[in-house]
Amino acid sequence: MSAWEKLYSKRISTLRPSPIREMLHVIRQPGMISFAGGNPDPQSFPVDLFYECASILKEQGKDVLQYGTTEGYAPLKEFLCSWLAPRMGRSLSQDELLITTGSTQVVDLLCWALIDKGDLVITEEPTFVGTTLTMHNHGAHFLTVPCDAEGMLVDQLPNKIEEALSQGKHVKFIYTIPNFHNPLGCTMSLERRKKLVEIAQKYGIAILEDDPYAYIRFEGEDLPTLFSLDDSGLVIHACTFSKILAPGTRVAWAVGNKDIIRKMAIFKQGTDLCTSVVAQALVYEYCKRGYIDEYLPHIVDHYRKKRDNMEECLRKHLPLEEVSWVTPGGGFFYWLQMKTIKTADLYPKALEKKVAFVPGESFYPNQNGGEHELRMCFTFASPKDMDEGIKRLGEAMRELLKK
Amino acid sequence: MSAWEKLYSKRISTLRPSPIREMLHVIRQPGMISFAGGNPDPQSFPVDLFYECASILKEQGKDVLQYGTTEGYAPLKEFLCSWLAPRMGRSLSQDELLITTGSTQVVDLLCWALIDKGDLVITEEPTFVGTTLTMHNHGAHFLTVPCDAEGMLVDQLPNKIEEALSQGKHVKFIYTIPNFHNPLGCTMSLERRKKLVEIAQKYGIAILEDDPYAYIRFEGEDLPTLFSLDDSGLVIHACTFSKILAPGTRVAWAVGNKDIIRKMAIFKQGTDLCTSVVAQALVYEYCKRGYIDEYLPHIVDHYRKKRDNMEECLRKHLPLEEVSWVTPGGGFFYWLQMKTIKTADLYPKALEKKVAFVPGESFYPNQNGGEHELRMCFTFASPKDMDEGIKRLGEAMRELLKK
Repeated sequence: MSAWEKLYSKRISTLRPSPIREMLHVIRQPGMISFAGGNPDPQSFPVDLFYECASILKEQGKDVLQYGTTEGYAPLKEFLCSWLAPRMGRSLSQDELLITTGSTQVVDLLCWALIDKGDLVITEEPTFVGTTLTMHNHGAHFLTVPCDAEGMLVDQLPNKIEEALSQGKHVKFIYTIPNFHNPLGCTMSLERRKKLVEIAQKYGIAILEDDPYAYIRFEGEDLPTLFSLDDSGLVIHACTFSKILAPGTRVAWAVGNKDIIRKMAIFKQGTDLCTSVVAQALVYEYCKRGYIDEYLPHIVDHYRKKRDNMEECLRKHLPLEEVSWVTPGGGFFYWLQMKTIKTADLYPKALEKKVAFVPGESFYPNQNGGEHELRMCFTFASPKDMDEGIKRLGEAMRELLKK
Repeated sequence: MSAWEKLYSKRISTLRPSPIREMLHVIRQPGMISFAGGNPDPQSFPVDLFYECASILKEQGKDVLQYGTTEGYAPLKEFLCSWLAPRMGRSLSQDELLITTGSTQVVDLLCWALIDKGDLVITEEPTFVGTTLTMHNHGAHFLTVPCDAEGMLVDQLPNKIEEALSQGKHVKFIYTIPNFHNPLGCTMSLERRKKLVEIAQKYGIAILEDDPYAYIRFEGEDLPTLFSLDDSGLVIHACTFSKILAPGTRVAWAVGNKDIIRKMAIFKQGTDLCTSVVAQALVYEYCKRGYIDEYLPHIVDHYRKKRDNMEECLRKHLPLEEVSWVTPGGGFFYWLQMKTIKTADLYPKALEKKVAFVPGESFYPNQNGGEHELRMCFTFASPKDMDEGIKRLGEAMRELLKK
């Protein structure tokens, strides 16, 4: 027994590593074709344009190498306050914006501000495991709402909220990924967005609108953000440069009412003081030069082709009487639902054939579902690997169907 | 009342912003000469050398712009595992090292792993307010031990620990800044280091050795780290590039037993996933090219002159019958102790005269001391400002003495 065992906090006993992070060693096996992870395609990175921006390290070196303010690098904040206006429905003031170290940190800081052990968070089910693990570490419990092709079934919310309140529970916020949901790929309809905001306002519950894929739209028109539909200040909008530039920067942001932004900033003083100024300055220079708007269509085109490619391979290689899916209009993911095959049987067989995905159960925050589901990321594999990997997956499925 | 008030977590009621961070608006007043903050001198930043290292953004762009592993950028970890050997007493294995977003994050992650509400942390008194606020956010309470010129009075530890244990308290770790203490400037003697490790081992209590100033030594020989004196795996050593390169990188690290490092890494998955890979890669390139060893003596020389300059100004301008200090052999700070003047009287008078410092009471984790003390940072002000600022401070003191 390690000398540390007797020193650990109580939460260590329920600590769960991210299943996706932990799969890294599986993915790295030689010959493995992976649709796990949610990594952007390095081919989509604007390496040369980003390198050009390093000039700011020379020109503003004395400023960029210094400690920054906890709230974020002022020029980047200023840029974002106006650049975000179309989606936010208005231009923002600086005290409504907090720069964070990845959007995982938005979740962490919001939980610091809102969550006491046992408090409830309402989430879509399934939902992104990375963020629910952060909430879990803070002691949150989960009230879940299923989704269809139009996103969260918001009509179920009032009853669930009333029931929780009648049990004396504290419902703190509703966590949603309205655009190109991870893992479902679906997008919340306008009608549901309006209803969701209405319900949150009625009960005085906050909404965390996690919107990393908003800009990765392959077709159709943008829908209004929940933030822009709300006039009560209860929506925190989280977004990131991870998908529209590069995740290695670890630069993301939260938009919201200045009271909650201020509280989150104070907690940020205690977690990492400020986000890397070097990274923020490089991102700012990239934005200032107009590269963000210039290059984004290339990224979207790149992923549209990848999505089309996966759609084709799925139709070609999988047993269509067994597997179904909703074609995602943007984002990074396909969510496959199988009629009879258990993911727990498919997963080891797939790994044997050197193809990896994330089993569905990882995305159920209360760990009670996803037995026939799996998430496939279409951004990463080359066209050749896409074809070969999905062919292997189809073979694995057919072998199980024969049994 | 904000709509958020009823949603806040219980800890919000005792949330305290960092007094140093909050002083920023005071410091920025026109004409203000500041000895507050703990910022490095931008004149000490190797701007050109660091800019050269941006080549890695081009050469390794596809890797550097991608998500990194939570544990840290592998080449940087490999470099540190051997570069740190002289101070750590041996070379390290990769699983004994965690890259963090500033060393504030080391404190945050260690608290995640160890602290339940009401658990005790033993600290020097006074000590760095930034880290105790992080611990406070996690619900830690503080058992404090005074210091003299040789650091923590470790002989007081066994009685204090026994008493806490007899009251059923959980003592989780001892927080110490052994080299060039912040704010005291003192360095723990070898004898005390040995005793401290012995006591921690006897009681099975961990030690967090916070060592940001280790490399900023103006004279004399390095003393062994607590980590190198311990064979039980109970010492976590925290250090950072903030003082030996640039704080704007936000790249720091923790060294320790692989069990606790692993737990901290899992909590890091939930706080920021990974530290900026862009920043880590730039820092790595800087280290790999040998600039870290080459340029460090310039930084130390620069600060030695600054320290000498402040020493001279203090002797020249302050009422020596009233004020005393221990000359720091390294680091960033002077700690001034006044016989009769109350810091609460001096502070507004100093601000009136446009000179700022951090009042002593900020550094008392239980907020019960420092009434006649103040911290002066010598790294930031120019020689001219140093003279003028300390002259103003001396005037403020003399005016109060006359009353």
